[in-house]
Amino acid sequence: MKAYEIRDRFGLQQLTLTERPAPPCGHGQVRIRVKAVSLNYRDYLVVQGEYNPRQRLPLIPVSDGVGEVVETGPGVEGIRVGERVAGSFVQGWLAGPMPARAGATTLGSPLDGMLAEEVVLPETGVIAPPDHLTDIEAATLPCAALTAWSALFVHGRLGPGQTVLLEGTGGVSLFALQFALLAGARVIITSKSDEKLEKAAGLGAHHTINYRQTPDWGKAVQALTGGSAAGVDLVIEVGGAETLPQALRAVRVGGTICLIGILSGNRVELPLTSILMRGVRVQGLLVGSREGFEAMNRAIASHQIRPVVDRVFPFEQAGEAFSYLASGRHFGKVCIAVGD
Amino acid sequence: MKAYEIRDRFGLQQLTLTERPAPPCGHGQVRIRVKAVSLNYRDYLVVQGEYNPRQRLPLIPVSDGVGEVVETGPGVEGIRVGERVAGSFVQGWLAGPMPARAGATTLGSPLDGMLAEEVVLPETGVIAPPDHLTDIEAATLPCAALTAWSALFVHGRLGPGQTVLLEGTGGVSLFALQFALLAGARVIITSKSDEKLEKAAGLGAHHTINYRQTPDWGKAVQALTGGSAAGVDLVIEVGGAETLPQALRAVRVGGTICLIGILSGNRVELPLTSILMRGVRVQGLLVGSREGFEAMNRAIASHQIRPVVDRVFPFEQAGEAFSYLASGRHFGKVCIAVGD
Amino acid sequence: MKAYEIRDRFGLQQLTLTERPAPPCGHGQVRIRVKAVSLNYRDYLVVQGEYNPRQRLPLIPVSDGVGEVVETGPGVEGIRVGERVAGSFVQGWLAGPMPARAGATTLGSPLDGMLAEEVVLPETGVIAPPDHLTDIEAATLPCAALTAWSALFVHGRLGPGQTVLLEGTGGVSLFALQFALLAGARVIITSKSDEKLEKAAGLGAHHTINYRQTPDWGKAVQALTGGSAAGVDLVIEVGGAETLPQALRAVRVGGTICLIGILSGNRVELPLTSILMRGVRVQGLLVGSREGFEAMNRAIASHQIRPVVDRVFPFEQAGEAFSYLASGRHFGKVCIAVGD
Amino acid sequence: MKAYEIRDRFGLQQLTLTERPAPPCGHGQVRIRVKAVSLNYRDYLVVQGEYNPRQRLPLIPVSDGVGEVVETGPGVEGIRVGERVAGSFVQGWLAGPMPARAGATTLGSPLDGMLAEEVVLPETGVIAPPDHLTDIEAATLPCAALTAWSALFVHGRLGPGQTVLLEGTGGVSLFALQFALLAGARVIITSKSDEKLEKAAGLGAHHTINYRQTPDWGKAVQALTGGSAAGVDLVIEVGGAETLPQALRAVRVGGTICLIGILSGNRVELPLTSILMRGVRVQGLLVGSREGFEAMNRAIASHQIRPVVDRVFPFEQAGEAFSYLASGRHFGKVCIAVGD
Repeated sequence: MKAYEIRDRFGLQQLTLTERPAPPCGHGQVRIRVKAVSLNYRDYLVVQGEYNPRQRLPLIPVSDGVGEVVETGPGVEGIRVGERVAGSFVQGWLAGPMPARAGATTLGSPLDGMLAEEVVLPETGVIAPPDHLTDIEAATLPCAALTAWSALFVHGRLGPGQTVLLEGTGGVSLFALQFALLAGARVIITSKSDEKLEKAAGLGAHHTINYRQTPDWGKAVQALTGGSAAGVDLVIEVGGAETLPQALRAVRVGGTICLIGILSGNRVELPLTSILMRGVRVQGLLVGSREGFEAMNRAIASHQIRPVVDRVFPFEQAGEAFSYLASGRHFGKVCIAVGD
Repeated sequence: MKAYEIRDRFGLQQLTLTERPAPPCGHGQVRIRVKAVSLNYRDYLVVQGEYNPRQRLPLIPVSDGVGEVVETGPGVEGIRVGERVAGSFVQGWLAGPMPARAGATTLGSPLDGMLAEEVVLPETGVIAPPDHLTDIEAATLPCAALTAWSALFVHGRLGPGQTVLLEGTGGVSLFALQFALLAGARVIITSKSDEKLEKAAGLGAHHTINYRQTPDWGKAVQALTGGSAAGVDLVIEVGGAETLPQALRAVRVGGTICLIGILSGNRVELPLTSILMRGVRVQGLLVGSREGFEAMNRAIASHQIRPVVDRVFPFEQAGEAFSYLASGRHFGKVCIAVGD
Repeated sequence: MKAYEIRDRFGLQQLTLTERPAPPCGHGQVRIRVKAVSLNYRDYLVVQGEYNPRQRLPLIPVSDGVGEVVETGPGVEGIRVGERVAGSFVQGWLAGPMPARAGATTLGSPLDGMLAEEVVLPETGVIAPPDHLTDIEAATLPCAALTAWSALFVHGRLGPGQTVLLEGTGGVSLFALQFALLAGARVIITSKSDEKLEKAAGLGAHHTINYRQTPDWGKAVQALTGGSAAGVDLVIEVGGAETLPQALRAVRVGGTICLIGILSGNRVELPLTSILMRGVRVQGLLVGSREGFEAMNRAIASHQIRPVVDRVFPFEQAGEAFSYLASGRHFGKVCIAVGD
Repeated sequence: MKAYEIRDRFGLQQLTLTERPAPPCGHGQVRIRVKAVSLNYRDYLVVQGEYNPRQRLPLIPVSDGVGEVVETGPGVEGIRVGERVAGSFVQGWLAGPMPARAGATTLGSPLDGMLAEEVVLPETGVIAPPDHLTDIEAATLPCAALTAWSALFVHGRLGPGQTVLLEGTGGVSLFALQFALLAGARVIITSKSDEKLEKAAGLGAHHTINYRQTPDWGKAVQALTGGSAAGVDLVIEVGGAETLPQALRAVRVGGTICLIGILSGNRVELPLTSILMRGVRVQGLLVGSREGFEAMNRAIASHQIRPVVDRVFPFEQAGEAFSYLASGRHFGKVCIAVGD
């Protein structure tokens, strides 16, 4: 079977389409013929060697994918050949709080990912996506959607009448926008592009802020949420170094900042009193559990939510897909169709 | 009545014993003849003008005090003359999550504090300390003890079999040590002084670390808590800039860092991935609510806990008390006896 | 001023319109010219003497009302003359968990209620309802709406993709229907009237069950929520004796039954194993806190929710309003216009 | 290998020691040479056919046991031959909230239990007990201890200064007594035997009540916990029909009753208003998860807790062990030594 690999050295230009022997399907495992994958910025960092300096090579990249089960190993009881499944991002996180070793069990790094014609995963590591989604749409869920879900509902407990601040219009933010609206919350979203902000407003965002035009957007958020309890209940923090100081201004007393990404850098000097004196919670978050995936799927199915897909590349153009993702021009998920 | 004031300018040498007219005791208020106060490092920062640059003067400093009710205003129903009460640090925080305006209602800054012969507080702003405590002991509770309580049990949910890391042997840490032992948790405590560490071990701390001798104490904590779930469940973070990076190493995956002080500095460059990838929660915390104070008092009374008091100064030597606190030589609370 | 009283004996026919001296407006209190009240079944039970056998008379009944502040006592800081306010059902429950004495501070019993031209309440006992509501609509919130809110979001944590079961189409159920839809949940609702079920479906209920035609409706709910996790996440239990056994069948493993009413009786024989073996939570609930009222108002305002009002009686026909409520023919709140 | 079976009909006299072929040790499974089992009243009900009318026969009874791993199947990674393990009561509950199908995966019914010389369990279904315990002591943990742990700390959040009421001196109550003391809580315990109450007091219970002498013990508990917040924070309800009405009197406003047993009967007529008006939570509870077992083991190891063992029977006298358990004369666990 064909698979993309990073072999000896990192870098997008090193990404190579190769022929690998089909992996054996052992006890409790299922073989999946991959139909579609979606890219996250994390996948790009992995390929570039910027995600985990200790990553061993060769590696099949890309955490998110969906496919058809074509073989079930002995002991598999809950899945049958022909079913459609998605991979679970943190293979070793079934339910409850994040296990200590969760980070060692994530797809696409350090474990091999989904950018291949076939993958073999344990039965506990796959999950049926909602029926109404196309394969491409279903492939967008494992990382970005579940991260948004966990941030809003597992850690943030967002509900009607509350307000959430979303940074940028990347994958997590767009899912968070769709989910927050479902839950009756108000959404403030930022971007440097008025065009993307218009699209976000078209999807239902209540307020948009161009952070190029309004560099002190934390203050702008306070103004938008004015009154005695100024500030948002929840920030989905994807920016990291450049955005977190503004996020600390934007959040209300006692509010939560879910730290899920560091797009603009890892290291930042923070004023700790703004956390301490205002009782703010900064909650790190690594995607979520299988249990959360199932709860999310019920919500997606119940409301027939459709993920926003920007563009689908053919399997042969995986490199172009990564380049397009890295360009930041997309609004919605960048996907790759695999197989026929 | 006599009171200490910071009048026109900040600075310990500006602290002046003065004669003030006794404040009127209005509707719903009680007049308290102060018997004892205790000092927190915050009080020193207030006096030095380093706590809140917008603090208005004159100001009576010191948040923590206890005294006898000598007059009750009209409408006071739950308190009678002769009862002993302590002031509640956040006057406007009765129960539930921290209100938006909590920070505007704290004693000793911005509101006048307890370093006076008499103070007038609303009935809702005072609370009866446990009976078995002396006045001096009771005066140590409002800030340091309640902060420790809130961190361990409201935010940290510490319980049997869990481990907490305490930084230094200041007021909050020593209360946290006593409370954590009550709750069946293991305690690791740091200090730069072997003498203080010995005292902490004498109080029951399970492990001690001299952070001068072990600058990479975060790693040492991991070793102490080894195994697959290395790291402590909870850190009571009082150090701020110099300690938080080590705290991030010391905490387990999914653990909590309660940020309650910034003794070593406010601004620190943090590696955000260590929060994100390990699902760590950094929770800011401003003392706690009256409801928490009551719960804490029940525990203190039930176990006949006695606060650790280092030294008691007479009212006339309040300045010396502050200087002694600032010297860092104490182990336990520094108090001032007021009145007879 | 005029007020309705139950004087010496209970019973709807004892409800008497009387002239009372206007109560004095003391420290921290506001005088309210009542504009509208709404009735809850609890008010009927109070009048009939079936709610609290130890209720002292005379009593002004009715917990829910809204009006204009016409006078503020000394010490009132947050409210001005001319503002519109509603009474808070549990006067003594500001925030956090229910205080021990909450039940002694509820309007309409044991405290005097709102069925009067003027009432005096403490500033902490009133709250501004959302601006977009008429006085009549605003008067429907304090008991039924807040009960629904507390059940769904404080205790139930209902969110997108979850399912709630509502019993009957009374005041709490209709608010719960509106709020649950806001939060992205699915709603199953029961009634003995097909006409009311049609109306509920018109408001957005996803499934309706006529419990006369389907006496074993707990099983029907299981079928509707089929699959391995059969059963609803949450039941808002208003029926009590006759419905709770069915509710226990309808709820999923690990689900919650919020017990908020006992319309069909107080005493019921329950099979405890159905609670124990399935990890069910039965949570009693007495309306909610002022903090909850504020959160609810933000949601109502944000979504411009309009309460369902069935009929408005003039002040002179308060007795007819009670009779109409007792008849059970209404769909939506039964209200009384007070004043001009 | 030898095992006890209930073959065709229920009843203690039907319990038969038989020779069975050793079960195969499949993928992901471990073979355990059983060293010790402990009995719970549930095991007696199972044997008598009173626990689950749909239980299929033959059945090896008894949920709780410990032994040495003598073989590991392919794919087992975390356990090695020679290690000591206990079975996990709910085999299918690893972490997080109780799964819908948990009840179908419990040892001793419906699954075969531990009263055999050898058992085979999946790697995920066993857990290493604390090292300091004897085999007999370790065998007491899976059901009774974990039930107590889950009730106190997962659902009850018991901590310093709180009070818990324990009914009787059975296995769950004695573990709850030990764990509650660890956590700094006060313990009130009931029994019909003064001798057992004395023993409980010897273990640290703060108050004892003979429920024969004080039939209205709910009221007695209120008196013991007097003041404005009368009542205990938590009741561990093991009695069911005869005790729950008293438990409802004993619990404070807003308190929790963890329903974990129904020793005195399943069906009881409850006054629902006492749940509703006082905001009480009745929480059903089926033992707990593997995650809870691990947390409990950390606490037991940290404090070197030793379970209370009443008597150990040899394997050949399993019937006598059951009879002794049924007699109710024991104080502490009734165990059976298996193997050498």
